[in-house]
Amino acid sequence: MDAVRVYAPGTASNLGPGFDCLGVAFTGKGDLVTAQRVASPGVRVLAVSDPLIPTDPARNTAAIAAAAALRRSGSPVGLELTVEKGLPLSGGMGGSAASAVAGAVAAAAVLEARLSMSDLLECALEAEAVVAGRHADNVAPSLLGGAVIVAGLDPPRVTPVRVHPAVALVLVTPDYRVETARARAVLPEAVARGEAVSQAAALARLVLGLERGDGDLIRESMVDRIAEPARRPLYPGYDEARAAAFEAGAFGVAVSGAGPTLIALAHWGIAASVGQAMVEGYRRIGLAAVAHPAEVDTAGARVLA
Amino acid sequence: MDAVRVYAPGTASNLGPGFDCLGVAFTGKGDLVTAQRVASPGVRVLAVSDPLIPTDPARNTAAIAAAAALRRSGSPVGLELTVEKGLPLSGGMGGSAASAVAGAVAAAAVLEARLSMSDLLECALEAEAVVAGRHADNVAPSLLGGAVIVAGLDPPRVTPVRVHPAVALVLVTPDYRVETARARAVLPEAVARGEAVSQAAALARLVLGLERGDGDLIRESMVDRIAEPARRPLYPGYDEARAAAFEAGAFGVAVSGAGPTLIALAHWGIAASVGQAMVEGYRRIGLAAVAHPAEVDTAGARVLA
Repeated sequence: MDAVRVYAPGTASNLGPGFDCLGVAFTGKGDLVTAQRVASPGVRVLAVSDPLIPTDPARNTAAIAAAAALRRSGSPVGLELTVEKGLPLSGGMGGSAASAVAGAVAAAAVLEARLSMSDLLECALEAEAVVAGRHADNVAPSLLGGAVIVAGLDPPRVTPVRVHPAVALVLVTPDYRVETARARAVLPEAVARGEAVSQAAALARLVLGLERGDGDLIRESMVDRIAEPARRPLYPGYDEARAAAFEAGAFGVAVSGAGPTLIALAHWGIAASVGQAMVEGYRRIGLAAVAHPAEVDTAGARVLA
Repeated sequence: MDAVRVYAPGTASNLGPGFDCLGVAFTGKGDLVTAQRVASPGVRVLAVSDPLIPTDPARNTAAIAAAAALRRSGSPVGLELTVEKGLPLSGGMGGSAASAVAGAVAAAAVLEARLSMSDLLECALEAEAVVAGRHADNVAPSLLGGAVIVAGLDPPRVTPVRVHPAVALVLVTPDYRVETARARAVLPEAVARGEAVSQAAALARLVLGLERGDGDLIRESMVDRIAEPARRPLYPGYDEARAAAFEAGAFGVAVSGAGPTLIALAHWGIAASVGQAMVEGYRRIGLAAVAHPAEVDTAGARVLA
């Protein structure tokens, strides 16, 4: 093969009490990376569909991850990449992670390198570390599909969580940006013991609620006591959209990643109307927003035919 | 009915990352409370098998819980209780909680009062609050059986966790006491953010490991980052018994409740030998200990025929 095109899905991380450790891949939006094998060594980026994203291979996550895969393969050839972004920059939908995953998988595929899932994860993590910090909670679900708990970092330990098929994901993105660095700067250094215990209990209950498709359990448990209290002022319209989601029957709402995208969990039968209600919640305070009702993407990154 | 005899199982709480929120009932050891209906109002304790436990009804958990049930029933009669302790005082095996649960259930049964599970839980919690602090992580599994996550307190929200039948519980009690108050006094007031995230991820993984019977997942996740680092010096022999348990093939080890009992999780086929190894670990540093290999008690508190 001389060229391979790979799709990696968008992901929502920080699902409520799953702050910094629970991520889920969603259907319908993702990034595409085409990798072409060339004789000249190194990795170059021929084009990126989003002009805000650098083509400099040292700052482009697809290229950094592809270079890591190339290095691991031991191959003397080079790669030329084309990146088609389906995910927004700084949106909270795992865009940098999806490009990194697609870059790593495309490189491995076109080089016919036998890299394991944990090799590919490590390649994508190297890239994510450059632009967004070394966190695997977007990279892992984009690579593997589904929902995952990520524990530790060296190496990251990834535990799949089965999400009951009745549970849909509704992503709603208001028309403003939040820099990840700023969203991390407001985080508290320490957490009161009781809040840490509550966070742990809530995450355990959320994971059981996801596996069982138990809406009441999700509703009760989907509360983040670590990041969200500090971050809430960064997200105009969050309260209004959240209230609208619950009124429309959602199980739970959280800021996805560093935001501003929100993710609501809801029964699949009402996902579209929950999305509309949230958009309307933003509109009432003068903010435009778009809704993306989705399912869990259980396939993860894949080579396209 | 004039008299009712109720058994409530012992429980292990604080299972590693489940500090203050995950408890499990075990088979083979528990407390028995016999309640007799009498004309004279109020609750009296006729006898307690353990002379260290007060018969004063204001300080006896079975009596406090029975009085709470009596009050809720609206009945004008009184109760006389006999308490047979199968669980040690200050052992970390949920003794005060089991007596409280048995007292509440025996009172409700002998009074033929229609109290719900949450009523009974509240009665037992009132008693537990007097002697051990208001925590439901022993009371709830003793009442309901099985393993439970407890979130919040007013009211406590109890989520059952299915423990795969391959997973056995091994309780090992060394021959010394640790006061619950002292074990709580050493707890940190606050936890670093990263540790709080790790604790939450570990508890979610532990719960999935218990449900799936996945020994590797239990082994990786059964680490408490909040209480255990501070408490470890209170438990001579902990390190030795823990190491011996892992050498014998245990999935994980934690201090049960406020200790000194340790709880190991292991495949049922090796539970007895894990217990022996842990006893031997204590013996090597000159401490006597007894092992109690058990299964999960899935029935919880029950009226005996």
